[in-house]
Amino acid sequence: MAQIHLKPLVFADAADGVIAMAHFAGARHWVPATGADKARLTATDVIEAEIAGPKHPRASAEAPLHLARYRADSSIGAIAHIHTVASTVLSRRHAAKGALRLEGWELLKAFPGIATHETAIDIPIVPNDQDTERLAALVEERLGKSAPVHGYLIAGHGLYVWGASAKDAIRHMDAFDFLLTAQLHEEQAR
Amino acid sequence: MAQIHLKPLVFADAADGVIAMAHFAGARHWVPATGADKARLTATDVIEAEIAGPKHPRASAEAPLHLARYRADSSIGAIAHIHTVASTVLSRRHAAKGALRLEGWELLKAFPGIATHETAIDIPIVPNDQDTERLAALVEERLGKSAPVHGYLIAGHGLYVWGASAKDAIRHMDAFDFLLTAQLHEEQAR
Amino acid sequence: MAQIHLKPLVFADAADGVIAMAHFAGARHWVPATGADKARLTATDVIEAEIAGPKHPRASAEAPLHLARYRADSSIGAIAHIHTVASTVLSRRHAAKGALRLEGWELLKAFPGIATHETAIDIPIVPNDQDTERLAALVEERLGKSAPVHGYLIAGHGLYVWGASAKDAIRHMDAFDFLLTAQLHEEQAR
Amino acid sequence: MAQIHLKPLVFADAADGVIAMAHFAGARHWVPATGADKARLTATDVIEAEIAGPKHPRASAEAPLHLARYRADSSIGAIAHIHTVASTVLSRRHAAKGALRLEGWELLKAFPGIATHETAIDIPIVPNDQDTERLAALVEERLGKSAPVHGYLIAGHGLYVWGASAKDAIRHMDAFDFLLTAQLHEEQAR
Repeated sequence: MAQIHLKPLVFADAADGVIAMAHFAGARHWVPATGADKARLTATDVIEAEIAGPKHPRASAEAPLHLARYRADSSIGAIAHIHTVASTVLSRRHAAKGALRLEGWELLKAFPGIATHETAIDIPIVPNDQDTERLAALVEERLGKSAPVHGYLIAGHGLYVWGASAKDAIRHMDAFDFLLTAQLHEEQAR
Repeated sequence: MAQIHLKPLVFADAADGVIAMAHFAGARHWVPATGADKARLTATDVIEAEIAGPKHPRASAEAPLHLARYRADSSIGAIAHIHTVASTVLSRRHAAKGALRLEGWELLKAFPGIATHETAIDIPIVPNDQDTERLAALVEERLGKSAPVHGYLIAGHGLYVWGASAKDAIRHMDAFDFLLTAQLHEEQAR
Repeated sequence: MAQIHLKPLVFADAADGVIAMAHFAGARHWVPATGADKARLTATDVIEAEIAGPKHPRASAEAPLHLARYRADSSIGAIAHIHTVASTVLSRRHAAKGALRLEGWELLKAFPGIATHETAIDIPIVPNDQDTERLAALVEERLGKSAPVHGYLIAGHGLYVWGASAKDAIRHMDAFDFLLTAQLHEEQAR
Repeated sequence: MAQIHLKPLVFADAADGVIAMAHFAGARHWVPATGADKARLTATDVIEAEIAGPKHPRASAEAPLHLARYRADSSIGAIAHIHTVASTVLSRRHAAKGALRLEGWELLKAFPGIATHETAIDIPIVPNDQDTERLAALVEERLGKSAPVHGYLIAGHGLYVWGASAKDAIRHMDAFDFLLTAQLHEEQAR
């Protein structure tokens, strides 16, 4: 899970946002098996990286996926990468279709630009790839062709979710987890 | 989630009730993706509104649904609106029938007026509608024709639940969540 | 949930046992919608009753079920009555058979007298009845004919569980919840 | 749950590792019905045993399973034995095949030696046996023929999981729980 802010921001404020996201996701067990307990992340665990600069030596392998999103959409202030059970299971079940449709749920209104439940969002699903530069390119190509959305799924892997701020990204994490958990239960009755 | 008390009540006491309901529901993740952490709500987050007066500038879009209930039933002292996974999934699955029947469960006795499990309640389900004035009118029409009940579902949206006091509304939230979760599991075996 | 000890015990120790059981069950949401938060029970919430004496004025409606167990089996030091999702769902699903068989699970060894997983226990299931004196008589008749067991189910209602001490009853609550939750998942795959 | 370190290690450090594993597993309810609350384990609850020495008087019945693993693989620094719902249910469902295959999940990378999701691990499943010396021999025979893996299942019983250190064993517990829970949900849709 990472968050990289545009230069003008003060590092301490950006670090606070990263920590808030990590504590929220860690407490819900959405960052399993990373070795570090994200629920106890502190400022010294946070790195600062240039969006267009060289790879930070402590950056995770998934940094290209974060950086590509920031470059593609300047309105993004925070990105979280989480592994929830529902997102991981559904990302695999619907992978062949290339997207998971969420339709008609009131909680879709948690996302900016959605004012009614009478809508559908297609969350892109990309196949997993250990070459994260190549994966980032595929993700951005897919997102470039899609209707605006605040997250995407990597099949069998997890969820990327973003917002204008860390607070927005937290709200979107919570919304996606609720919606995907509801969707998982709905599909089990079919 | 909102609670609006009749005039004679002291605001501080009413605010305490709202806070107790918010903390209870927030800790169970029943108010997802609202931006504010309901588990940490304080008195300054609580508003006071006239049941028959003009719309409060900080009132949520769902205020008409709360106000209509208070006007229709003077025994109501507290209303909570929550989004639980079970209520959201079942509200959609049974929407076409217009009601979800809960029958034979001991915990139905958590609701006033129910002294035996040998009973059934039909929880009305109304279609979701972003026009909350129109939705409130439909809800009240449906409740007016129904046997007494302490909650209703909005399809794909969530649950409204009420009681004579905040304490009662909390007990009813807990009862509905248990009953709807049990119902969801029971239906998965069919 | 109640616990009633034989006379020679000191009330303070018995109350500590009741409180430990209530805190354990309350924290797991196994005592829903009772109005009081069992996770915060204190000694003043605990009552003392004679096993053969008149009904205590603050005793719950379910006291006869507890008292009948104490009278029938002098080795019982503590009884808990809990409502878990798995016990409530399975108690209804298997009600017609009159028992739920748990077979082959290692955790059956949590119960006294069971030293191997190569065993089965038949947890009696009785139909629910608001006449708790009549229900207690039926339960004791059923238990009298059954192989020794440390709990029984009331259909659509919940679980009674006991042990020689509050600590044992807590261990048995935990074992039943695990076993019934596993059983529920196993049945969903059939 | 036990952990036994090679002699040169300082006992206090080893005890800290055992306590960290117990607190982690206890908080997740993965050590149910043991009588002691593993979430509150302290150093006085930890025993020290010789890997090749006589059985420690306070050692659990499952000590042979731990000792056999330490003898067979000198890279192991910590072993945990946990009972999770998903591991217990899946261990029984797939017992006849002798292994549970986990394939294609990103989180497989939590295990040493796995650098891509494009892999599969076969978690051995052995039948349960109360003779833990005999069971340990069977487990080691099976593990000796299997591709390297960091855990095995005992049918209807639970999961053994290990790592080079207590920290690694904790990460592997978390990974197995996530993967097995996802697998359980995936199978429910079939």
